[in-house]
Amino acid sequence: MGTVPLLSDDDLSPEARAVFDEIRATRQTDYVNNFWRALAHDPALLRATWDRLKVVMAPGALDPLVKEMLYVAVSAANGCSYCVHSHTASARAKGMSDEMYGELLAVVGMAAQTNAVVTALQVEVDDAFVA
Amino acid sequence: MGTVPLLSDDDLSPEARAVFDEIRATRQTDYVNNFWRALAHDPALLRATWDRLKVVMAPGALDPLVKEMLYVAVSAANGCSYCVHSHTASARAKGMSDEMYGELLAVVGMAAQTNAVVTALQVEVDDAFVA
Amino acid sequence: MGTVPLLSDDDLSPEARAVFDEIRATRQTDYVNNFWRALAHDPALLRATWDRLKVVMAPGALDPLVKEMLYVAVSAANGCSYCVHSHTASARAKGMSDEMYGELLAVVGMAAQTNAVVTALQVEVDDAFVA
Amino acid sequence: MGTVPLLSDDDLSPEARAVFDEIRATRQTDYVNNFWRALAHDPALLRATWDRLKVVMAPGALDPLVKEMLYVAVSAANGCSYCVHSHTASARAKGMSDEMYGELLAVVGMAAQTNAVVTALQVEVDDAFVA
Amino acid sequence: MGTVPLLSDDDLSPEARAVFDEIRATRQTDYVNNFWRALAHDPALLRATWDRLKVVMAPGALDPLVKEMLYVAVSAANGCSYCVHSHTASARAKGMSDEMYGELLAVVGMAAQTNAVVTALQVEVDDAFVA
Amino acid sequence: MGTVPLLSDDDLSPEARAVFDEIRATRQTDYVNNFWRALAHDPALLRATWDRLKVVMAPGALDPLVKEMLYVAVSAANGCSYCVHSHTASARAKGMSDEMYGELLAVVGMAAQTNAVVTALQVEVDDAFVA
Repeated sequence: MGTVPLLSDDDLSPEARAVFDEIRATRQTDYVNNFWRALAHDPALLRATWDRLKVVMAPGALDPLVKEMLYVAVSAANGCSYCVHSHTASARAKGMSDEMYGELLAVVGMAAQTNAVVTALQVEVDDAFVA
Repeated sequence: MGTVPLLSDDDLSPEARAVFDEIRATRQTDYVNNFWRALAHDPALLRATWDRLKVVMAPGALDPLVKEMLYVAVSAANGCSYCVHSHTASARAKGMSDEMYGELLAVVGMAAQTNAVVTALQVEVDDAFVA
Repeated sequence: MGTVPLLSDDDLSPEARAVFDEIRATRQTDYVNNFWRALAHDPALLRATWDRLKVVMAPGALDPLVKEMLYVAVSAANGCSYCVHSHTASARAKGMSDEMYGELLAVVGMAAQTNAVVTALQVEVDDAFVA
Repeated sequence: MGTVPLLSDDDLSPEARAVFDEIRATRQTDYVNNFWRALAHDPALLRATWDRLKVVMAPGALDPLVKEMLYVAVSAANGCSYCVHSHTASARAKGMSDEMYGELLAVVGMAAQTNAVVTALQVEVDDAFVA
Repeated sequence: MGTVPLLSDDDLSPEARAVFDEIRATRQTDYVNNFWRALAHDPALLRATWDRLKVVMAPGALDPLVKEMLYVAVSAANGCSYCVHSHTASARAKGMSDEMYGELLAVVGMAAQTNAVVTALQVEVDDAFVA
Repeated sequence: MGTVPLLSDDDLSPEARAVFDEIRATRQTDYVNNFWRALAHDPALLRATWDRLKVVMAPGALDPLVKEMLYVAVSAANGCSYCVHSHTASARAKGMSDEMYGELLAVVGMAAQTNAVVTALQVEVDDAFVA
């Protein structure tokens, strides 16, 4: 289904292989998912994406589970099937319970609803909200 | 700038006034923001929106600050200026620090980036991600 | 605020002027709104857009008010402020009552909400829905 | 393909079963489509969604077929495959003819086109359009 | 998977057949892709779409390959799987190299990222950018 | 209008100042636009965004003007007013003529239109387009 074939480990350039090695070490699993196998056609893009993702999703002022749920929410709003699947799986692996998932869905739906109604009404921003 | 004028307290129908009373009581402030003043033209839609929002954003398995940040993330992805402003203000009021906000922006940007690249590549969903 | 200045009647090329004449005749008003004054920088694009819009929005199996409401709904979903304003005004001019507008907003909000939740859940299409 | 398995009738909680009973009674068919079978994992979200959908899509100032076509238009703009399929099927069941469908497609396409061009030009809203 | 069956050559109305003949002559291939076979249910929409596409995508101030890459970029941003596939194939047929494709993906991703962050920050447009 | 105040040169942290110095040197102008003044609240995000932008937009297999036009196209599709303004200005500074701009608008509009119609029709991807 993709616009490029997915690269197997045997097809990787040395630069792409180095990124795959880091992904495996960081995630402590041998499994490397299809996104990286598609990106591997362009080792520079693969490297830049992985390097940035690793920083952005690391523990910080927000914990990694919150970050994954934010990722799911944005991916749903942007209609990215692949990303919804992969980050929902990651969120579960990081501890998202069924109750948390249900509330995530409810917020995503509520936000989409009021976003649409506000945009249809073209409501003017309150002075109180502006920095 | 809106498609309807914003209603002042004096313009409200009794049904709309009752909702405004609840908003004020729940939020413990006299201030009612423009969204509700636009929605008040249709008291049934106002009532349904408020009743649902109150439930969805209440404390649960996710805490209210996480819910507000999810709301900001979806609103940014959907391009709703008003909602970005109002929910960013709410998130700050609920304790979002500058560090948390910076990380929220970084995740929103990262997700949008990979959403776009994955969609451009039409990467096939891994079997491992499907329920 | 635009990326091009709005052209006044005195600035129009003959090709653009001819389109403005048709807009005025069709709508039976001297007023030509900003969209056409921005498009007028490119008379070929202006002509193609007006010619197609006239056909698409004409009475047919759907009446013009339904078409305007569909236009508002799509414009809200796409986050186009200008289009929301202009087509909401057109819908009112064609007879959209406050009750109809309230129901339009409710459907737009409901659709946005379930769109987001379905996308987050990645629900598989029922065989019964496929042609 | 979903992020959750679809629940069969035997898997339902009593709260979810009650909603399914209402869906069957309202629609006068035994068939309950996949959306509800995915939502049924969270009976509260299922209940809130069904209760609201029933109100929003009921006959009112707009007839149910117009509402379904609005739903299709928003779902297409939001890129929700499932929703496009399910609401196109519903619109046909409520009487949408091939001619009406062709005109719906034409309006959706025209709106998307002008939305994109207006947004690219950042056309300023006419004073005449503001409430 | 579509909402309408794809029409084979034997199913075409005379008006649709005439458009197919033009597509084949213009593209110098017997192959007519699924988009046109779905649109063929509405010969007027088929005709209008083909006539406009032919003009828009013709060589001009921008060369056809640049136009195809713009089409891919917009289609990815709008989440249209079909369009991403068909226009990526067209761009390759018109000479898009692997290096060009990698850079296209990088720009699409970068733009999506900064679009999201700017929207989240609601940055005010610089006076210097306004026409 | 933003969610954060824009930082003047006097407000910058040393890390942010270093990025501003690079922006000025690279662009050969003293002017630093609002996007960077908003991002400067988070020097790490500012640094990461600038470093990546510089690489992505540099001359390569695609020339910088084509990259700017792709950026405009994606920004319009994503509804980012600020980005549309800033990258349209950049494209003009890099040589985009009125004719090129008109064709860019025409492609963006055409793509948005067919994206919407294809999504509404849920056309199945041709085998011929899949890698």
